[in-house]
Amino acid sequence: MANFASDNTAPVHPKVMHALIDVNSGNMPAYGNDPVTEKLQETVRMAFGAPQARLFPVFNGSACNGLALARMIRPYESILTHRQSHINNDECGLPEFFTGGKIIGLEGEHAKLTVASIGDLIAAARGHAPHTSRPKVISLTQSTELGTVYSLDELKALSDFARAHGLYIHMDGARLANAVASLGCAPTKVVAGVDILSFGGTKNGAMLAEAAIIFNPALIEDFAYIHKRGGQLPSKARYVSAQLQTLLENNLWLELGRHANRQAQALRDGLIDRLGVGLLHPVEANELFITLPKVMADRLFAKGHRFYNWPNEGPDAYRLVTSFATTDDDVKTFLNDC
Amino acid sequence: MANFASDNTAPVHPKVMHALIDVNSGNMPAYGNDPVTEKLQETVRMAFGAPQARLFPVFNGSACNGLALARMIRPYESILTHRQSHINNDECGLPEFFTGGKIIGLEGEHAKLTVASIGDLIAAARGHAPHTSRPKVISLTQSTELGTVYSLDELKALSDFARAHGLYIHMDGARLANAVASLGCAPTKVVAGVDILSFGGTKNGAMLAEAAIIFNPALIEDFAYIHKRGGQLPSKARYVSAQLQTLLENNLWLELGRHANRQAQALRDGLIDRLGVGLLHPVEANELFITLPKVMADRLFAKGHRFYNWPNEGPDAYRLVTSFATTDDDVKTFLNDC
Amino acid sequence: MANFASDNTAPVHPKVMHALIDVNSGNMPAYGNDPVTEKLQETVRMAFGAPQARLFPVFNGSACNGLALARMIRPYESILTHRQSHINNDECGLPEFFTGGKIIGLEGEHAKLTVASIGDLIAAARGHAPHTSRPKVISLTQSTELGTVYSLDELKALSDFARAHGLYIHMDGARLANAVASLGCAPTKVVAGVDILSFGGTKNGAMLAEAAIIFNPALIEDFAYIHKRGGQLPSKARYVSAQLQTLLENNLWLELGRHANRQAQALRDGLIDRLGVGLLHPVEANELFITLPKVMADRLFAKGHRFYNWPNEGPDAYRLVTSFATTDDDVKTFLNDC
Amino acid sequence: MANFASDNTAPVHPKVMHALIDVNSGNMPAYGNDPVTEKLQETVRMAFGAPQARLFPVFNGSACNGLALARMIRPYESILTHRQSHINNDECGLPEFFTGGKIIGLEGEHAKLTVASIGDLIAAARGHAPHTSRPKVISLTQSTELGTVYSLDELKALSDFARAHGLYIHMDGARLANAVASLGCAPTKVVAGVDILSFGGTKNGAMLAEAAIIFNPALIEDFAYIHKRGGQLPSKARYVSAQLQTLLENNLWLELGRHANRQAQALRDGLIDRLGVGLLHPVEANELFITLPKVMADRLFAKGHRFYNWPNEGPDAYRLVTSFATTDDDVKTFLNDC
Repeated sequence: MANFASDNTAPVHPKVMHALIDVNSGNMPAYGNDPVTEKLQETVRMAFGAPQARLFPVFNGSACNGLALARMIRPYESILTHRQSHINNDECGLPEFFTGGKIIGLEGEHAKLTVASIGDLIAAARGHAPHTSRPKVISLTQSTELGTVYSLDELKALSDFARAHGLYIHMDGARLANAVASLGCAPTKVVAGVDILSFGGTKNGAMLAEAAIIFNPALIEDFAYIHKRGGQLPSKARYVSAQLQTLLENNLWLELGRHANRQAQALRDGLIDRLGVGLLHPVEANELFITLPKVMADRLFAKGHRFYNWPNEGPDAYRLVTSFATTDDDVKTFLNDC
Repeated sequence: MANFASDNTAPVHPKVMHALIDVNSGNMPAYGNDPVTEKLQETVRMAFGAPQARLFPVFNGSACNGLALARMIRPYESILTHRQSHINNDECGLPEFFTGGKIIGLEGEHAKLTVASIGDLIAAARGHAPHTSRPKVISLTQSTELGTVYSLDELKALSDFARAHGLYIHMDGARLANAVASLGCAPTKVVAGVDILSFGGTKNGAMLAEAAIIFNPALIEDFAYIHKRGGQLPSKARYVSAQLQTLLENNLWLELGRHANRQAQALRDGLIDRLGVGLLHPVEANELFITLPKVMADRLFAKGHRFYNWPNEGPDAYRLVTSFATTDDDVKTFLNDC
Repeated sequence: MANFASDNTAPVHPKVMHALIDVNSGNMPAYGNDPVTEKLQETVRMAFGAPQARLFPVFNGSACNGLALARMIRPYESILTHRQSHINNDECGLPEFFTGGKIIGLEGEHAKLTVASIGDLIAAARGHAPHTSRPKVISLTQSTELGTVYSLDELKALSDFARAHGLYIHMDGARLANAVASLGCAPTKVVAGVDILSFGGTKNGAMLAEAAIIFNPALIEDFAYIHKRGGQLPSKARYVSAQLQTLLENNLWLELGRHANRQAQALRDGLIDRLGVGLLHPVEANELFITLPKVMADRLFAKGHRFYNWPNEGPDAYRLVTSFATTDDDVKTFLNDC
Repeated sequence: MANFASDNTAPVHPKVMHALIDVNSGNMPAYGNDPVTEKLQETVRMAFGAPQARLFPVFNGSACNGLALARMIRPYESILTHRQSHINNDECGLPEFFTGGKIIGLEGEHAKLTVASIGDLIAAARGHAPHTSRPKVISLTQSTELGTVYSLDELKALSDFARAHGLYIHMDGARLANAVASLGCAPTKVVAGVDILSFGGTKNGAMLAEAAIIFNPALIEDFAYIHKRGGQLPSKARYVSAQLQTLLENNLWLELGRHANRQAQALRDGLIDRLGVGLLHPVEANELFITLPKVMADRLFAKGHRFYNWPNEGPDAYRLVTSFATTDDDVKTFLNDC
């Protein structure tokens, strides 16, 4: 039986587990002042070609987004994001809580923001100050909530627009590995123009490890306070940093992302091309949004396969998520049972 | 030259000013423990046929909404409102600030919510707990942000739905007088089913006087703390209460509302029926949303008339607002200058 | 029967009422863009010898403090104030609410902060970053919560210290008139070194009118958003501004402050010097903190005099507050009834 | 060289690491709906003799306190705690952030609250409503910030008082194991009267694992929302739960606590009894607060020993913390190097 419920139902990658065992000896300073975290800083700078970047290890992706956004806005400012983004729908108001500000959910095909969708809103808000919260951040999800990926051109258009209008770019990279793997380019290119990245590890082989990576040096100041006050400063930070170090070393994160993407494509090939199932969005990363006849869905559930009905996309819509741990056998069994 | 910019550019009604002079003698207990406020409690209960109601005088309408909503939700809950409502667009994030919760802006013709628009959202949110904020309040604006008025049937449908789903009803009544005057019924009927009303005075002849009127007795408890902590507890409360007392006595508020509505109809007759100007929404209260040829708008501005371009409704859209102070001459001069 | 319960039980000064009547004609732009508020800006600059100052009219003193402090700190910073200050004890957590930050209440004789009490705390907090909120503002109350007044030397010592340590100075001036009258110097001297002043009108003859006066030009930016989001931007601002204008014109505020102080001294003379009642703090403004034999207090209450038992200062402690409206007869009758 | 800087500089206990390896296979539902977490619920109920208790696994101790307190108060309420408590001094305002409310720091010998210190405050606050935040929670730290332990009698007095006055009891149990080990009684007795416990694992052999354990069943409702919104709901919860399960199984947590306490006593014996060093507080758990001649402190630092100067307790005050990982050799070497 295959589990396509989410990439966070998977276990921890063996290399990550080994790394945890490796750092488990002796005393180390707490709160990130340890050699494991120090080394990770260097690794991150290399991985993203960003010599001024600074990473803050955190436990949780929603909180990572909240900390990043809290650094970028004052409470009377707003965050522009896609209506279907995680920060708008799936964090129980955490971004409003952490920032005090306002989230504005915009439309856009396949969960992607466009310059056009943002432009009008900016103009209206500026003319209506101080009665409307001032737009200050564009928050992008890469890969998106619907399994699509912003192209480098799309990213550039958005970050050029942001820069021209005095906005920051936040990238929710809970599934960044899948996006970079999909684009097949250097990570550096994908984060060009990004001020703060929420870098995801947990969905990609880590146990619980995410990080705020600050590319804009002006935003590093005072982040340590936000980190602490948000309850996201690990006292035994070495154990979070070791996970991220393992993922970044030798590009393990990208290898795992590629694997998950490949399995998503295999599912896509089987379901769409061979079985003629309906596809709701292009499959560009590790998620599929499809329509299934109810009888087929019920049969699959009955056989023990796990995945979610996705009513936001329609009554017979379903989501399948692959991960680093998805095996060829998972895909084959699932397709056979359709 | 006529001023149709807003109903808050008008002065204070003479009767209100007289009332302020009348209460200006001697010492009185502060913070609402004065006889003027005590008498007002009784007046409000009579005016709305609500013997258990309790009023809290406040300074400002945005804050009044914020206090009411803060009483109704916990920070992990959400407020359902029309996308174009004041709480969503015109309060610089105050409702998020006062409540800690999430505002969800829904679509609906002429700025009115419908049961249909809310139903789907409720179902989706419940299935996704605790990842999505729990819907807890429907916030209606009566009359609406676009000058329309919920009918008694529409109100009943919404409040029945709310009761069936464990939601509260908040009514933003910054322009309630215009709505009640428009419906031509008893105020009691308009607030049936409302848990907390933000009752507006400032836009209807007061100097600065609004009130949270709590109809649901269970919500009275602890409101005094929210009132104080929000910076909305007047120390010399008699001067706020006296304004509201004057408006409610002898139904002055409804008389003023009817006057403003009549002037809006006169403008409507002249502009739409005689001049053939485009109308964007039914004129049911004291606001008109129209399209004007730019040359006509420019001519009116040049003559000194005041009103706003309203880009939310289109590039050549304009808003005209009448008030208790709008004279026949204002209307006539404006129409002549078109 | 005399009312010494508080200075906010008094009515509105006749000149203030006249001013409200005077501005009550015709339409004016809302939200402070009116000529009354514009003129007030100039008046304030002259009154405080501060050509770069900017005033924001508000309704309420607690909220005024909250807005000022919200402008000065980020949520991970702290506000140093006297343990007995209004912001620490009497605002139901409003400053924490408006700022998101932490209030640290310090000791000090007669409700006054000293450089010594602050110095240790600063050093400890800096060494413990980011685990402790970063101190950022010293908030002083002038006159203090216990009716004393900071001398110019004391103010200078505190503002020099603040400047040397990168802290702002906030002054809660709900009773600033009494302090300036007491010091007998130009207002300019009292606010030298102050970054934002909460200027009080309501306790000194106004109906409901306070103002944030920003002396530090760098803090003007974005204050309009905080003003609005806090529910303190008056739509019909002319009616708040007219009150403040009247108080500042011809130094009416200081005249009223001097009157209240004189009556406090008369009470002091009678109670302490003649009747031998115990005095808890020097009487430097318009408040007395005294000990009374219970039998005397009961007799005064029975005769209808109003004042508060003040358990914070001991079981037999009482507070008497005079105001612009306190008459010679009030004082005489009270003393006779002792 | 010994590390007495803190108990969070220690590594992870081998049994905890084994447990992590053991649960690392196959898919499991996310967000705590996994069998590891389910089993832990039962273990906790047994360990604390609390069949109705419910545990919520979290990452971080400060956040655990914040979530618990957020469940207990509304933003206009206050939390009474010792002035030196972690929530007041060491969480950068997190409790104010998570709750919106006010922390009131009280005095008390050896960092312990007493009924007497709380009683006066309650009375004053109630008389001053709604101008003062309403006291709602007593937050105790067990063992305390200064290494002392509340006796069962002291706990009973506080919880009786709380019950009589409608207050909740929160216990910050970051070092509960040390307290229970010190008291030598059943855990059940130590948490009798506690409404929510912040149960600490990280300082006692875990990697990063804490839990809110709710004993008062009325407080379970809605906690899931607070958990999520605070960024503390682990997606791969099995890895947090497995750590806690290991600690609780066979009372490993108490065994580790006893070990740390024994090493603290060995240090105490050596330093105080043999070397005559000054002791600032009784050593009842795993922390020592001592005064050292500067020359001795410098010598120890020079030899590579790690511990903190503790200026809050005086210029020559120092803190030593032992842990499950402190060896006899650590103690011996340190004492030899004094």
